[in-house]
Amino acid sequence: MSAPGHLHRMRARRLGIDTHSDAFVFMRKDSPVCRSEGFASHNRILLCAGDRHIIATLYQVEAGFLALDEAGLSDTAWRRLGLKQGDEIVARHSPPLESLSLVRSRIYGHDLSDAAFRAIIADIVDGRYSTIEISSFITACATRPLKRREVLGLTRAMVETGKSLSWDSAIVVDKHSVGGIPGNRTTPIIVAIIASLGLIMPKTSSRAITSPAGTADAMEVLTNVDLDAATMRKVVAREGGCIAWGGGVGLSPADDILIRVERALDLDTEGQMIASVLSKKIAAGATHLVLDVPFGPSAKVRSEEAAHHMTDGILAVAKAFHIKTEVVCGDGSQPIGRGIGPALEARDVMNVLQGAPDAPQDLRMRALTLAGALLELSGRAAQGDGETMAAAALDDGRARAKFQRICEAQGGLRKPPVSKHRRPLEAPRHGVLSAIDNRKIARLAKLAGAPDDKAAGVDLHVRLGDTVVRGAPLCTVHAESPGELDYAIAYADANSDIFQITDT
Amino acid sequence: MSAPGHLHRMRARRLGIDTHSDAFVFMRKDSPVCRSEGFASHNRILLCAGDRHIIATLYQVEAGFLALDEAGLSDTAWRRLGLKQGDEIVARHSPPLESLSLVRSRIYGHDLSDAAFRAIIADIVDGRYSTIEISSFITACATRPLKRREVLGLTRAMVETGKSLSWDSAIVVDKHSVGGIPGNRTTPIIVAIIASLGLIMPKTSSRAITSPAGTADAMEVLTNVDLDAATMRKVVAREGGCIAWGGGVGLSPADDILIRVERALDLDTEGQMIASVLSKKIAAGATHLVLDVPFGPSAKVRSEEAAHHMTDGILAVAKAFHIKTEVVCGDGSQPIGRGIGPALEARDVMNVLQGAPDAPQDLRMRALTLAGALLELSGRAAQGDGETMAAAALDDGRARAKFQRICEAQGGLRKPPVSKHRRPLEAPRHGVLSAIDNRKIARLAKLAGAPDDKAAGVDLHVRLGDTVVRGAPLCTVHAESPGELDYAIAYADANSDIFQITDT
Repeated sequence: MSAPGHLHRMRARRLGIDTHSDAFVFMRKDSPVCRSEGFASHNRILLCAGDRHIIATLYQVEAGFLALDEAGLSDTAWRRLGLKQGDEIVARHSPPLESLSLVRSRIYGHDLSDAAFRAIIADIVDGRYSTIEISSFITACATRPLKRREVLGLTRAMVETGKSLSWDSAIVVDKHSVGGIPGNRTTPIIVAIIASLGLIMPKTSSRAITSPAGTADAMEVLTNVDLDAATMRKVVAREGGCIAWGGGVGLSPADDILIRVERALDLDTEGQMIASVLSKKIAAGATHLVLDVPFGPSAKVRSEEAAHHMTDGILAVAKAFHIKTEVVCGDGSQPIGRGIGPALEARDVMNVLQGAPDAPQDLRMRALTLAGALLELSGRAAQGDGETMAAAALDDGRARAKFQRICEAQGGLRKPPVSKHRRPLEAPRHGVLSAIDNRKIARLAKLAGAPDDKAAGVDLHVRLGDTVVRGAPLCTVHAESPGELDYAIAYADANSDIFQITDT
Repeated sequence: MSAPGHLHRMRARRLGIDTHSDAFVFMRKDSPVCRSEGFASHNRILLCAGDRHIIATLYQVEAGFLALDEAGLSDTAWRRLGLKQGDEIVARHSPPLESLSLVRSRIYGHDLSDAAFRAIIADIVDGRYSTIEISSFITACATRPLKRREVLGLTRAMVETGKSLSWDSAIVVDKHSVGGIPGNRTTPIIVAIIASLGLIMPKTSSRAITSPAGTADAMEVLTNVDLDAATMRKVVAREGGCIAWGGGVGLSPADDILIRVERALDLDTEGQMIASVLSKKIAAGATHLVLDVPFGPSAKVRSEEAAHHMTDGILAVAKAFHIKTEVVCGDGSQPIGRGIGPALEARDVMNVLQGAPDAPQDLRMRALTLAGALLELSGRAAQGDGETMAAAALDDGRARAKFQRICEAQGGLRKPPVSKHRRPLEAPRHGVLSAIDNRKIARLAKLAGAPDDKAAGVDLHVRLGDTVVRGAPLCTVHAESPGELDYAIAYADANSDIFQITDT
């Protein structure tokens, strides 16, 4: 539709607002474009700058905030349009988004085809969906659970809308943990062991969204993890393995967008979980996958039965994509390792790799179990020999040397930072440590500043079953500022059930 | 959870951003509160000022936009907290919203009880839901359609979370149109006729959301429609009827919030439509209701069958709430009346009431049919006599006099404004007018400035079946600014199928 252009031209102004994947534009209610186009707050409008265009959510503002001919943009909008301060942009009604009618068709009771998922996910990746629309899509796929065929279609669409890696090796191994256990930082150790034994393990990991640290956050204190696909290929070609941040590689970018909204809605459905996990593995070119599923009273998965039920779907879909997958259940009743927070977890990883006397044995054992499972699954080790083979590579220093070389290939091995402010939490009584609340200890680490403050977090001094005397330190809280330390301690004081001590 | 308060205190700053029912708060990413609480963009956080508190969606900003200790607020947040510039507010983690677990339970396959709907709707009305969460709730109720029992629960909850009106009369009549037909402004005429015949008709109407005018917009050019419940009662006590804006009275406030998100998602499901329509009628104290359901190729309802199918649900639920309801289908193949836009529609209404020679007969007839149905349904007229009784009241001036008195009771009768800029659309050829596109003619009126510019819109000069000669004016576009006039005309030029002319 043609219309007098002068009404639509505006000067772009960067407002420096972080709206994640959402693009926001702010305009005066009384601006010519809002009046002539009949724009209202919450409208989705088309913004064009040069040959780029995006769809953004409009919020109308009063005089004072912006000039009549100014359009204020959120960071996402600004970046996608590639603007410089004062650049001219053109605002118009956005053409109806075809793929939204597909979302509606699922709401109205129809299943979605592969092509439908491809259209929807492509629009989401291109930022054409508002968070409100993504919320509707996610809820529509959760309320009437996705059929197996639809999960395949969604997974495929998430793979196809991102980068994919391929390797000249018949066997490419990968590992995924369902998470929920603080400190469970086995990945760097496993990659080092596996690569030192000649297998290909191009690992991409995520940053924390709701946890005190993701593998990418912990590895980042040791080396550079923000690798593009080309650099990642180079590292893997040279060392057989890497530990990169998935977001930098661009595998299944839809997952990063969807998962934020799923977390905001606190929605956790099987179909979306399967597509989320496997789309990343498929795009990474994995042929063999081990799933780490710790279970326990305060873990994400509460029982071994629940663990298997949850993984049945993954196993079926992984099979359809020809990924040989094995589930390894394990103890999730308490954190794994001592440190909770990027630098403290990295320290534990280094201690295990270096065979330090005070290396956390539970972290070492968990890594060996998972690495062993991968060695057997891939045929590198005979059934029953995997763990021994992994232990050998760890104990004779091959794994440590490999880790060192991988970090150098990624940009050099760094020393983890140490925190400026610390305070211990002391046992309020004598007794036996009978429970640690995974969720609350994670929250404590986050309140102390993790993962943004790399050195912040919690360092555990006790394990379940330990006998403690009154006043003995249960853990030490690490922070970068006194305020955050106070704040974390205040939370601990208010939550005496983080640690449960019962009579001996 | 207690924590050092100094970290949480911020100076409030009004940003003048219109976010509808959504409350937004903007804070520096590097502010003490964001760091200590671990806030991230999109987090829902609790804001307290004095004894008031709200939940708002956080968006983090960079230096330059706000000071470290400043919290910028959207208009909704500002109003709900009742702030003055520079007031101190406190920001904390918001406690988990209990009712969201009920929304999730429906997503996970459970039906919602009356109590569940009450909890959800109460939180929505109190502004505790983000638009993302409302989107999820609406989609969850649409993807697995609401059971009849749930529709009753939702409707009841929407009534109970708003004001309710009661009248000392056994019979209180009301009318609702499913809409979709431009210019269909029968309500003011019907209220005048009905009240002049001694029945009670306390009518609340809506403003336009996507149309060029709602009844409240059209009536507003003639008199004050923003009445509170007390004023409305006074007017009805005196005159037996009124035409008020529903939003001012506070009946079913949830509906106004939900409907915006439904429109944004372009979702239109039966259960929500029923709850939306009936919650307002129940709260208004209606005992007898006539539903106006025009159908036609470009109407909201495409056929008479569709009309009945759509209304079956309403009739059943209305029965459960003891509202005697009748559906009146009718011709929706073209706009009703001549004017499209607040002032132009108000002019048509006055012409019909005054029996002006050029009063649009279709509007007159439609009003008489609906008024007649109400008279018969309520027992005021014998079967078959309703329309005659209504016509008599209209023709002998009783209805006009009643309308005059109602407007005076609401604050005085005003003259509709007239537009500054006009241009006719001319017939491109000879022939017979065979179709008018309701949606496109409505869009044309909106582009000309309706409903914000009261005098803007479209004035039709032809009806279906009319023979037109080349160059004859089909309609006149009215606007308040030359730019908007140009813009509407450009749309008309680009959409030659607004009017269809075929050979005689």
